[in-house]
Amino acid sequence: MYDWNNPALLARLNGNSAADGFNKWFGVQGLAAGDGKVEIIVPIRAELRQHHGYVHGGCIGALADMACAWAGAAASGQDVVTSNFTLHFLSPAVGDKLRAKARTIRSGRSLATVEAEVWCEAADKDPKLVATALASIAILPERRPRIS
Amino acid sequence: MYDWNNPALLARLNGNSAADGFNKWFGVQGLAAGDGKVEIIVPIRAELRQHHGYVHGGCIGALADMACAWAGAAASGQDVVTSNFTLHFLSPAVGDKLRAKARTIRSGRSLATVEAEVWCEAADKDPKLVATALASIAILPERRPRIS
Amino acid sequence: MYDWNNPALLARLNGNSAADGFNKWFGVQGLAAGDGKVEIIVPIRAELRQHHGYVHGGCIGALADMACAWAGAAASGQDVVTSNFTLHFLSPAVGDKLRAKARTIRSGRSLATVEAEVWCEAADKDPKLVATALASIAILPERRPRIS
Amino acid sequence: MYDWNNPALLARLNGNSAADGFNKWFGVQGLAAGDGKVEIIVPIRAELRQHHGYVHGGCIGALADMACAWAGAAASGQDVVTSNFTLHFLSPAVGDKLRAKARTIRSGRSLATVEAEVWCEAADKDPKLVATALASIAILPERRPRIS
Repeated sequence: MYDWNNPALLARLNGNSAADGFNKWFGVQGLAAGDGKVEIIVPIRAELRQHHGYVHGGCIGALADMACAWAGAAASGQDVVTSNFTLHFLSPAVGDKLRAKARTIRSGRSLATVEAEVWCEAADKDPKLVATALASIAILPERRPRIS
Repeated sequence: MYDWNNPALLARLNGNSAADGFNKWFGVQGLAAGDGKVEIIVPIRAELRQHHGYVHGGCIGALADMACAWAGAAASGQDVVTSNFTLHFLSPAVGDKLRAKARTIRSGRSLATVEAEVWCEAADKDPKLVATALASIAILPERRPRIS
Repeated sequence: MYDWNNPALLARLNGNSAADGFNKWFGVQGLAAGDGKVEIIVPIRAELRQHHGYVHGGCIGALADMACAWAGAAASGQDVVTSNFTLHFLSPAVGDKLRAKARTIRSGRSLATVEAEVWCEAADKDPKLVATALASIAILPERRPRIS
Repeated sequence: MYDWNNPALLARLNGNSAADGFNKWFGVQGLAAGDGKVEIIVPIRAELRQHHGYVHGGCIGALADMACAWAGAAASGQDVVTSNFTLHFLSPAVGDKLRAKARTIRSGRSLATVEAEVWCEAADKDPKLVATALASIAILPERRPRIS
């Protein structure tokens, strides 16, 4: 289905995520990761919404940020942290599921630039683009094995 | 304590927030709102952390976004939505509490530019600046009363 | 060549630009404009460079900003101004020509979100992506004809 | 006048700038640099304007970018390049002079986060804040002396 998916990398990313207080609560599930790209989904439930019934902007931002970081990890094969990101909200998110698609635009030795789209899906409607993001992901220096 | 606080506005913002799935879960509490500024705190608990034990970047982003939107509401007195925001992470957040301070730089008829700082606090340490944000907040047109 | 080009719009944008102190100096030339998109080129000359011989980041930013604004004008058919933009530099720009390609992601009543890529071209090399941008473009209210 | 000014650093930054095609044309002059901060002015002339008579957004962006990079150089004492920056336009710039004030928020080993304000000044008016920026500045590794 995703010809760029790297199952070992995906398992590592999903594993870190399942061990992670916020991500576990958030319910993210990586579908594919590889070649500097990822695709992640989150089921929408009441706790992700704000007072107008839309998905809370903070949840959309958290998903976009995470997708960008995972894409940077997929590009570099190393541990990463988000250095900064910019998020533009495009439409209110009403539906059953959020889907983030992130893609590394360029990866250097210590920084990757990544873009992400967040889509909202509902059973009876076409997917809707709800946000777009541009992030700078710091690639952490590889830890050398210690000489014992 | 906050000579710029507007208690009625603060009560309205906290009230919306308590009715809001995500914010209720998140546990945000507005301390002051007025004159285009706000101060909001969130107690840190396990569900806000990522797999290294730091507060998850998504939670820091959600708080910064929210603080910027509330500051835009405090500047305009109207309903607002975040149009876009940029967040720079400065340090890992380890501690008991996050505190966001947002300030409207300029508010026009339909857009406000707002900046926010997110600080992390622990009982035994000086507060630490963990993120800084710059946001564009859309001010929604006031709803006119309908003629019945 | 560009099946989305609107020659009347392009002529208007190039006309404004030729009347514009900075753009005249900068030497931008719109190649196509329409359907929320534009393509603009700038010949590289010594005055656009910085002290390492690369094109100055300020010139790359100016071109990206301009391309985003023109794309917002092409999407809305109205006068626009850039509200804010984010630019990520990807590679040093060395070559003969800069080419910006901008595309409106979403255009609302008063704001458009636009992305742009800036490419650097040289006679003997493949084009290189040197920067990517995400902008929020304010669409100005149409001026109504005055009743005399 | 600026108790944080480092004259040797300032001379180096102004020297690089005078040797630089774009900056020479642009006419920037650093007034002070040190302690992670800079202040730079540019006289406004016809070639910096756009077709409504305001300073071109590209020039404001170029100045903000430059001020952020210089502040990163002042914080690190090393060569730097802008990695990314976000600029919010606040008001049209009409006047005699632009003044950028940049301040490093945090400087790490390889990245600095810097904020800048651009003010517009005219003989007969109060200075006006026309733009605010947030940038990520990459600190280049120090070149080691070569063994000959």
